[in-house]
Amino acid sequence: MRPKIYLFGDSITEMSYGDGGWGASLADHFSRTVDVVLRGYSGYNTRWALRVMEKVFPAVEGGGGDGDPLAVTVFFGANDASLPDRCSAFQHVPLNEYKQNIHSIVSSLKKRWPKTRILLITPPPIDEEGRLRHPYVENPMGLPERTNEAAGAYAKACVSCAEECGLPVVDLWTKMQQLPDWENVYLRDGLHLTPSGNRIVFDEVVTKLKTEGVCLDNLAVDLPLITEIDPNDPLKAFQK
Amino acid sequence: MRPKIYLFGDSITEMSYGDGGWGASLADHFSRTVDVVLRGYSGYNTRWALRVMEKVFPAVEGGGGDGDPLAVTVFFGANDASLPDRCSAFQHVPLNEYKQNIHSIVSSLKKRWPKTRILLITPPPIDEEGRLRHPYVENPMGLPERTNEAAGAYAKACVSCAEECGLPVVDLWTKMQQLPDWENVYLRDGLHLTPSGNRIVFDEVVTKLKTEGVCLDNLAVDLPLITEIDPNDPLKAFQK
Repeated sequence: MRPKIYLFGDSITEMSYGDGGWGASLADHFSRTVDVVLRGYSGYNTRWALRVMEKVFPAVEGGGGDGDPLAVTVFFGANDASLPDRCSAFQHVPLNEYKQNIHSIVSSLKKRWPKTRILLITPPPIDEEGRLRHPYVENPMGLPERTNEAAGAYAKACVSCAEECGLPVVDLWTKMQQLPDWENVYLRDGLHLTPSGNRIVFDEVVTKLKTEGVCLDNLAVDLPLITEIDPNDPLKAFQK
Repeated sequence: MRPKIYLFGDSITEMSYGDGGWGASLADHFSRTVDVVLRGYSGYNTRWALRVMEKVFPAVEGGGGDGDPLAVTVFFGANDASLPDRCSAFQHVPLNEYKQNIHSIVSSLKKRWPKTRILLITPPPIDEEGRLRHPYVENPMGLPERTNEAAGAYAKACVSCAEECGLPVVDLWTKMQQLPDWENVYLRDGLHLTPSGNRIVFDEVVTKLKTEGVCLDNLAVDLPLITEIDPNDPLKAFQK
């Protein structure tokens, strides 16, 4: 049975199999070695994620076995960081609770699957003008429901959690803002990713997984590759 | 547990999570309802596929249960149709054997999973000039290793198998050739698909699955959608 990598997160995960999506690119990258499993839930914050974890991840007898996933990406914070006094307030989670929730999500995964690598991903930066141009709900105030400053605080909290738990982290908020015109090149509505933005997430996730030992070099290929099949005796490759 | 749709085939399946790929598009389409599982094996013909089926599809006790996949796409023939006297001869499978092999693959799946929908997909048409411009192996003869006529014979055999088994089929060979400039618009090397070619496969597969009752309207959504969450009492949605 092929090992699995779960992608657990909000809409940036749920939409990651769209055009140029980072999830699809991961599945393509690992096409003969790993099943990449999509568990993205649009709009969800860590409070809701924590409530549904038992349903998202199937209970397995024992644990520590071969059926444990290779890795889980945990990519929340963009909704938690919605401002508490703006039009998406119902998705807001206070910063301290966000941090506690990430710790709880990590603990729950570690308890279930002690050997599974957990990779945290911070929320992306926010382009407030983009958010005003592409409202998700009625916004009579005319003020953005998310700000880059707030997203940054949640991103920093996410990085702290990773340090406290000894986990790898993709600091997407910082990474993207190091690049020119990030507002337009990497974000399509001030929050969600363009194909180029998806590419950054893909590259960073592949790099971080590699530092954890999860890379093509270390993974068994499912069934003989065409290059391993002897043209003079093709069936020999299938006799094992 | 989410139901699964397996994609079983050769390189056109293995590469289906690449840019604009039909597999990734299916996974995106079913993002909250179904796990689309990639089982593509580049270069494989039906003879080899038949040898590895027990390894590709995990044995399940009993069968007929909730863990059975919703559907399996079976997409072989492009390699079987390699000409027996050209540079990819080792992948060739005679037409009669191809037909028998498709029947055997279908029987094996039906025996294991009586209720699972099986969708056959014919090989695509071949652009012989494209094949000469993009050789996969040394080709001293200077003749294409695949021809459109041969691919057409295997496509017709695939359609016959579907009729004999009472299964739906995507006749990609015929469908693509009804469209203008198919050689360049839908094929990137005379055989493999461009994003537009992938789009055709995606549209056809979604349409055929729908006629089999496999469509978003009939599938349970995994956890409450954001639109089902009451902004005034979000946690209510998670109390069930």
